[in-house]
This record gives sequence, C-alpha cells and structure tokens, in this order.
Amino acid sequence: MREAVEQHKEQFIEELKQYLRIPSISSLSEYKGEVRRAAEWTAEALEKAGMEHVEVIETNGHPLVYGDWLHAPDKPTVLVYGHYDVQPEDPVDLWDTPPFEPVIKDDKIYARGATDDKGQLFIHIKAAELLMKEHGALPVNVKFIIEGEEEVASPHLGPFIEENQERLSCDSVVISDTSFSAEDQPAICTSLRGALAMEMTVQTANSDLHSGTYGGGVPNAVHSLVSLLDSLHDSQGRVSVEGFYQGVPEPTEELRREVAAVPFDEEETKRGLEIDDLYGEAGFSFKERTGIRPTLEINGITGGFQGEGLKTIVPKEASAKISCRLVGDQNPQAVYESIERHVKQHKPAGAKVSLEKLIQADPVAMDSQNSFIQAAAEAYEDVYKVRPLFPKEGGSIPIVEVFGRVLEAPVVLMGFGLPTENLHAPNEHFHLDNFTKGIETAAQYLQKLS
Amino acid sequence: MREAVEQHKEQFIEELKQYLRIPSISSLSEYKGEVRRAAEWTAEALEKAGMEHVEVIETNGHPLVYGDWLHAPDKPTVLVYGHYDVQPEDPVDLWDTPPFEPVIKDDKIYARGATDDKGQLFIHIKAAELLMKEHGALPVNVKFIIEGEEEVASPHLGPFIEENQERLSCDSVVISDTSFSAEDQPAICTSLRGALAMEMTVQTANSDLHSGTYGGGVPNAVHSLVSLLDSLHDSQGRVSVEGFYQGVPEPTEELRREVAAVPFDEEETKRGLEIDDLYGEAGFSFKERTGIRPTLEINGITGGFQGEGLKTIVPKEASAKISCRLVGDQNPQAVYESIERHVKQHKPAGAKVSLEKLIQADPVAMDSQNSFIQAAAEAYEDVYKVRPLFPKEGGSIPIVEVFGRVLEAPVVLMGFGLPTENLHAPNEHFHLDNFTKGIETAAQYLQKLS
Repeated sequence: MREAVEQHKEQFIEELKQYLRIPSISSLSEYKGEVRRAAEWTAEALEKAGMEHVEVIETNGHPLVYGDWLHAPDKPTVLVYGHYDVQPEDPVDLWDTPPFEPVIKDDKIYARGATDDKGQLFIHIKAAELLMKEHGALPVNVKFIIEGEEEVASPHLGPFIEENQERLSCDSVVISDTSFSAEDQPAICTSLRGALAMEMTVQTANSDLHSGTYGGGVPNAVHSLVSLLDSLHDSQGRVSVEGFYQGVPEPTEELRREVAAVPFDEEETKRGLEIDDLYGEAGFSFKERTGIRPTLEINGITGGFQGEGLKTIVPKEASAKISCRLVGDQNPQAVYESIERHVKQHKPAGAKVSLEKLIQADPVAMDSQNSFIQAAAEAYEDVYKVRPLFPKEGGSIPIVEVFGRVLEAPVVLMGFGLPTENLHAPNEHFHLDNFTKGIETAAQYLQKLS
Repeated sequence: MREAVEQHKEQFIEELKQYLRIPSISSLSEYKGEVRRAAEWTAEALEKAGMEHVEVIETNGHPLVYGDWLHAPDKPTVLVYGHYDVQPEDPVDLWDTPPFEPVIKDDKIYARGATDDKGQLFIHIKAAELLMKEHGALPVNVKFIIEGEEEVASPHLGPFIEENQERLSCDSVVISDTSFSAEDQPAICTSLRGALAMEMTVQTANSDLHSGTYGGGVPNAVHSLVSLLDSLHDSQGRVSVEGFYQGVPEPTEELRREVAAVPFDEEETKRGLEIDDLYGEAGFSFKERTGIRPTLEINGITGGFQGEGLKTIVPKEASAKISCRLVGDQNPQAVYESIERHVKQHKPAGAKVSLEKLIQADPVAMDSQNSFIQAAAEAYEDVYKVRPLFPKEGGSIPIVEVFGRVLEAPVVLMGFGLPTENLHAPNEHFHLDNFTKGIETAAQYLQKLS
C-alpha cells in the first residue's frame, strides 16, 4: 500500500488543494453557495473513488453527501463520517498566507480546513480509491456520510440519522477529526466533552448616552455585562454557577493515571503560546482541566464604541458569546437552565439580560477495549510502529453521541491531526506525512476488519 | 433684532444644513479631508459675517479658524470659541435619517453636529452678521477662534493659546457648547468636570486557541479583561481604585442645595431612556452623580469572535475604552497612575495588560457672580423671559480650563442645546427655536457689554 500511496501522493495533494480552495464556511450565510460547491466536490470525489449511490442530500441547512460500496457480503460494514465545512477565517490579518489559497511549507499544507476536517476526511476517500484501484473491490462494506454543518453543531445530521437508520446501519463508525497526542504518537480518542453555547446580551437605555451628561448616573450595558461575566468564575478558576457541576464524576485514581500517561510538556506549551502562566480550576492538571473537567469560556465580547480614538458614551448594549464543555452525566439543558438562574440572580440593577442558546451536545465516552478500536490500534501500529494512546479529548464532536446511540455501533475516533495544527485559528495546517500515512492506516483498518 | 432674525431664518437654516452636510469627524483619519472642508467653510462664513483677518491656521492636526472685528476702541473684547468637528456617526443603523443629510422634523434639525457644536457655534457667527448688517459695526470687539479637534480633546489648541496670548487676548470668552437645564429653562454652566480617557488591552496567548483543546487550561483574554474591569467598581457604585477620590471635595450643604435646585424628573428620565432603574454611587442623587462627583465609565469593549453564529475559541486579545470625569482638585495624571497601580495589583495570572492614555483635562469651576456671566444671564432673560440657572455640568470641555487660566478671562458657557438632543448618539438634533432665539441672545449679550 505504501508504494501505491507514494505513487499517487503528488496527485492526491493537488486534489486536496482544490478541496481546500473552496471557502465552505458553514456559520456565515454569505458562504452558502461555497458550502454547496464543497458538497458537490465531495460527491465527485466519492464517485471517482468508485463509490456507488452517491448523492448530495438536501436538508433545511447545508447538504449531506452520501456514497457506499456494499459488495462484501458476510463482511462488516464501516460507516465513515467527516465534514466538508470549515470555521470562519478571521482574524484574517494573522494568517501568514491567505486561508483559502493552500500553500505547502516544510511538508505541511496551510489552509483553513487542512486538518479540520477536509484533509483528514480525504484520507478515507483516497484509501477507498486506492483499494478499489488495486483490488477492484473493498475488503469490507463501506458507507460514507459527510456533512457540511459540523462547525455549527450538526443541526440536521442528527434528525437524518434518526430517520435513516436502515440506510446508515453499520457495525462501526470511523471518524478522523481528532489529533495525535504528540508528533509520532498516534491516539484514538475515547472520550469527548459535551458542549453548550449561548449568547448573552445586556441592554440598558434605548440609546447610547453622553458619558459627561449621564455617566455615573445610569446603568452602563458594558459594566453590567462585565459584572455578570465576572461572576461566572470564582477566584479558584471554578465555575461559580450553582448546579453547574451536577453530573460531573469525581475522577478515579485510574482515570487520573490514564490522563497523566498522555505526554504533556508544560514549559514547552507556555513557550509555544508565549504565556507566563497556565490557568484553570484549582486542584487539577492542565490535561485534566482540558480533558475530563467541564469548562465555561467566553469566546468573544462586544459593546459600545470600538473604533479608532475615543467616543465618550455610556453604551446601551453589550453581548458575549459563551461556550461550555461538559463531561460525565452533565446535561446541557440543565446546565443552560442553571446559567439562566444565575443570570436572574446576579442581574445588575437597570439591565435587561437575555440568553440565546446556540448549540448543545451530550458528552460521550468509548470503551478502548472494543474490538473495532483495537483493530484501529493495530492498523496504526503497523504503519507508525507505535502503539496509539487512548486520550480523553477536550473538544466536542456533537454527532458522535448520536451515531453511537442511534446506530448502536461503536465509534472509532481515528485521528490524524496534531495538537499544534492551529485548528479554528490562523495558519491552520496539516502534516502531509500524516496525510499519506493516514491513507495507509485507513486502508489497513478496513483490511483488518475483513 | 427679533424681526431681523425672523427675516433671515430660512436662509440661515439652509446655510446650517450645508455646514452639517460636511462629515467633519475628527477622530477618524479617513475624514481628514472633510474636516479641512469644514474649516474652510467656517472661514467663509466668518468672511461673510464681516469678520477680518480671517485665516485657516495649520496645526499638526486639524486646522484652527480665526477671524476678528476690532473697531470698537474702549469697548471690551469678546473671544468666541466653538468647534466645527463632530463625533463619529456610529451606530449608523440606529439613525432614523442619515447623519450627514440634515432633515427638519417638528422644528428640530436632525444631523450629526446639529447641537454639538455646529448649530450652537453658528449662532454667534450669525449674530455678528446681523449686527454688522443692521449697524455696519459691532457693539464690542469680537474675536473668533474655532477648532476642529474638540471631540479628540483639543491636542493643538492648548499650545496655540499659550503661544498666541496677545492675538487671543480678551475680556471674556464665550462658548456655546452646553445645554439648557430643560426646555424653556436656560442655563449657564458654572462647572465642568475634568476628563481622563484610556484604552486597556489584555493579551494572553500569541494566537486564538480552540476552546475544546485549550479551554479551561490557559488564560482567556476576555476573562482577564472582564475581571479587571469588574474590579474597578465596588457593589455600591463607587470606583474602587485606591487613590481615585483624592482631591474630590466633600460637597457642602450649599452646593447640594444649588445642585438640587436644578429641576430633574427621575420618573420621566427613566421613561425616556426606557430603563427600570437609575444607577450610581451610593449616597448621592442623580444630579450629584452626574454633576459634581467623579465617574469611571467603560465606553466600549471588544475581544474574540463577534460575528454571526459561533466560534469556539479562547480569545488571545481583548480591549476596552475607559473614560473618567473628574472634579475638584483631582489630578488627571495622578488618577491615571492610580489606575496603572490598580491594574498591576489586579492583573490576572497569564495576562499581559497595557494602558494607553488617550486624553486628559483638568476640572474647572466659574463664579456665577462674575459680571460677564451676569450680563449673559440678563441677555437670556430679555429673550426667553426666564432667569437662567447656573448648573454644574457633568461633561468636559477640556479647553475651558486653558482659556480661563492662560488668557485670564472669565469664561461664559452660554449654552443653547437641550439635554435631550442626543449629542454623541444617533439622531442628534437641535431645536430651531433655540437656534433663532440663540442668535438674538448672543447679539443681546454683545450689546449689553457695550
């Protein structure tokens, strides 16, 4: 397989570049046409790989793409999931090269979506294509379901899975949208945090007011928001919303050991990020805080005058985007309601506060001893000559919980990214070595299941 | 005089509309050309009024405009000051009509700069023009000094006054850039708060980070900023920066009575602004909080993702604009340093905080018994049939202190605005009744000094 991959490498990279040139930003409505173009491009790539029943499936949002190859009777069926949509590019001025003009530097490809998730998704399409080329058939049955709304929390894929259980039925779901623990240390993530995101808006007067005439005598929307937001954490880095930690399991000694086994260099992380100190909930390590503990982060804030210079106003409105990562038995809806109660209790005088829920997703955990996960581990070991670790990831892939529950199939998070690849940030990139080895590993996995 | 004003009213309003159409926003560099256009327009208006030695004077920023008429030997000299620059228009979507397309509704003229300060400044130009037309001369000597940087705290006018004391020498300075206490209640402001404005910027990591991977484990620039900003006030609405109140006089019973004499309807204010509660420093009334007490207001805040939808990042940078109003013997530089110390003491772990001073101005107070102020009060009474009040204004006109100190001349703040005219806000407007009566009052004032 390695030879076949090497032989087609240049061509595959050229194709990936085409894919990455499509600015398929799902969260911004003005990119709707580009998102559709990426769906159609994905469908063509599946056709080219020899998949059948390829279809761009309409939803009330961005389309899904389906394709399958089902000519291996008595063999298991693997459902490959990935997403062709990407995060917004901003702040665009911090990119060294334009986000939608892929560039290769030091054997890495730089572009929005390179590692999250077009590059990783493409691995599976190319693995199928090479297997079909070499053998005229796949070793197992394969279905692809690829969406364009992962970065906006998959609002239409969940219902689609519920309504198409037969069509999507499978023995295992494989997803490449996670990372290695470090370079040369493959990893199969066995836990994902849940998510809850919302927007908090504070309104005071019906107009911005002159700070000389009114300042100090009327509520200031930015003051009110700042006071509310600051009340969400205590001085120990704990979330101070009553009820927030309900359902969070006390970490067992075994879990803490498992988390500690994943390598992490605090000094190197601080150097890399250029910060003097890490930060977080007292009593927990960085890996625990970002992997097995829940968090509440403000993702952005806006209010009042933000231009050049000065405008001496008392602002009438301010808002913040907030997202939580949830673990264990935390229920996103219950957490949302506890934040609603907190806001009601802490609302500053004269301020009207509203909350709007943007997304929610349950936490999910997998058993590393499951045979499909073990087969994936062997595939990695064959290619990388290293046994993968089974880390707990801090991120959320909301649809993973739905796949596992509705299709009753174990989910294998076969990641090929690196934690340093700037996903959701400027200068996102993907290591081409993992792109090519990933194709080998993905092919190897299908062969092992045969 | 009333007849002459009535006769020219329509023409004067048409000219004012021309003036208001020039978007002379001094704080935004892209409007530099428009600011100059407004300076030239002002110079032409002075020429037209019969002023001599009219000159557009270059500075290192926006130009000054000078003009005089000095043919009344043995009569006093009045220096008229005003500003032709305006505030930015944003948020532009909250304007009912475009900010630089003046519209008249219910005898009010709507446009940015209508009341602050083109409309009020134009009163004096037109008063001089009518007096020249009627008598071929003015009753006293008059000088005009008009600037284009008031909204950015007059960085070049101060030094110009210091260097041109002879040219600007006068017996009284008259400025129309303040408000009545209420409709039909003229007012001569006898106290202005000082000002100090700054930008606070917090930086954490060198890049926005994925909140799933890093959230809860690294400093978040918005959290850090929110925590710092919230620490600036206590729960009683007091500024909790150590040393902030140094130099603030305990209000005497007499001052409190004087402040209380200015009418204020709390319920109507709340209804007008559509707020449930007022807000401010415990133990003080609204009029005291906004007139004789110092304040610290956040004018705007920005950080992280602010677009449509969601982006689950840990933001690397956030900033806020802050402005203080100062009273009594508060020293702007000392207050700035106390805020610097506060920031150093309260800086959250892992955050780099920087402060940049934008403007500073000393507080100023006038004696209402001064003969020039009394003459102005009589002029108002002649025209409006109501004796003006002598309120303490919460706003700052930084240059007032410089005029009084350097030229050793009493400053008369002869305002014709109304407190409800939305200065610095959308739908700024100016009552045309006060425009025309203002011209009468200004002319009457000059005649009284003769």
